Amino acid sequence: MILNGKVRIIGIDPGLVHTGWGVVDSANGRLSLVAAGVINPEKGDLSLANRLLDLHTKLRAVLTEFSPDEAAVEQTFVNVNPTSTLKLGQARGVVLLCPAESGIPVAEYTPNQIKKAVVGVGHATKDQVDMMVHTLLPGVGKVKADASDALAMAICHSYMRVSRARMDLLAELAKK
Amino acid sequence: MILNGKVRIIGIDPGLVHTGWGVVDSANGRLSLVAAGVINPEKGDLSLANRLLDLHTKLRAVLTEFSPDEAAVEQTFVNVNPTSTLKLGQARGVVLLCPAESGIPVAEYTPNQIKKAVVGVGHATKDQVDMMVHTLLPGVGKVKADASDALAMAICHSYMRVSRARMDLLAELAKK
Repeated sequence: MILNGKVRIIGIDPGLVHTGWGVVDSANGRLSLVAAGVINPEKGDLSLANRLLDLHTKLRAVLTEFSPDEAAVEQTFVNVNPTSTLKLGQARGVVLLCPAESGIPVAEYTPNQIKKAVVGVGHATKDQVDMMVHTLLPGVGKVKADASDALAMAICHSYMRVSRARMDLLAELAKK
Repeated sequence: MILNGKVRIIGIDPGLVHTGWGVVDSANGRLSLVAAGVINPEKGDLSLANRLLDLHTKLRAVLTEFSPDEAAVEQTFVNVNPTSTLKLGQARGVVLLCPAESGIPVAEYTPNQIKKAVVGVGHATKDQVDMMVHTLLPGVGKVKADASDALAMAICHSYMRVSRARMDLLAELAKK
């Protein structure tokens, strides 16, 4: 794990219809926007397997273009509708696979951890999160909600990764 | 789609702990066993993303070794427990992706379609399905339940694919 210097982080918000992604650079705590967008896997007459393949191809292309060092994905809110949960799970499996294929570590955060890291409170609204994303990354401009959510995940990880790494280090030292 | 001659079919039963697979050859309606087994993705200290990567690597190796022409996967029974449904969905997403990456078409069947195709009745028990798998593929011997389930999916597809292709052909002709 890169603790000093610049680290490039991708946040990914999985979905079979829209998968949001956002890439930020974090250099000694200073954040800057690299790029953000939304992947819309082909639908048409495609089988589920081929829709997942299209998601895989497009997300791999984003990873190749921006070469992030680390990835962050939201720990999914389990939907009350089991069919939606299964669909989301299938897209999420492919989304988690993509960075792992490139050897990029993937951290997972709960929605509350993300809100707390970005806004300061775990019960922040979606609008408040979006406003903070725009404040912390002034260059963002108008982006779709899924891309903004993905940027929030990347911001959350940029704050959490250092404290996590320190905790791991302390745990290692305590073992000796 | 290969309608005459030999076609090689893989059935896959997805799961993050055990993913069963079974390969059969179907030559003009005559079935023969090629191979069957169970993939157990690494667990240990691995992150979910890396467990999915291990499943992907191992299933891709099976596809490379046996080069099936077509794949069949069960349409998942949506679990009452949403957390289990999400986990299964994640494994299922990766499992559907693997054949699609090799351009292999993936057919999905409901549990009832599989039971009906293999045993003759949609309400057959698991034991009855397993017994029919052993009757139709005498060489199977002792295999784990997940591998036997996967073989049942492959057998189901070997029966269904021809009638499906004929229906598609009739629909095409009706359009003209």
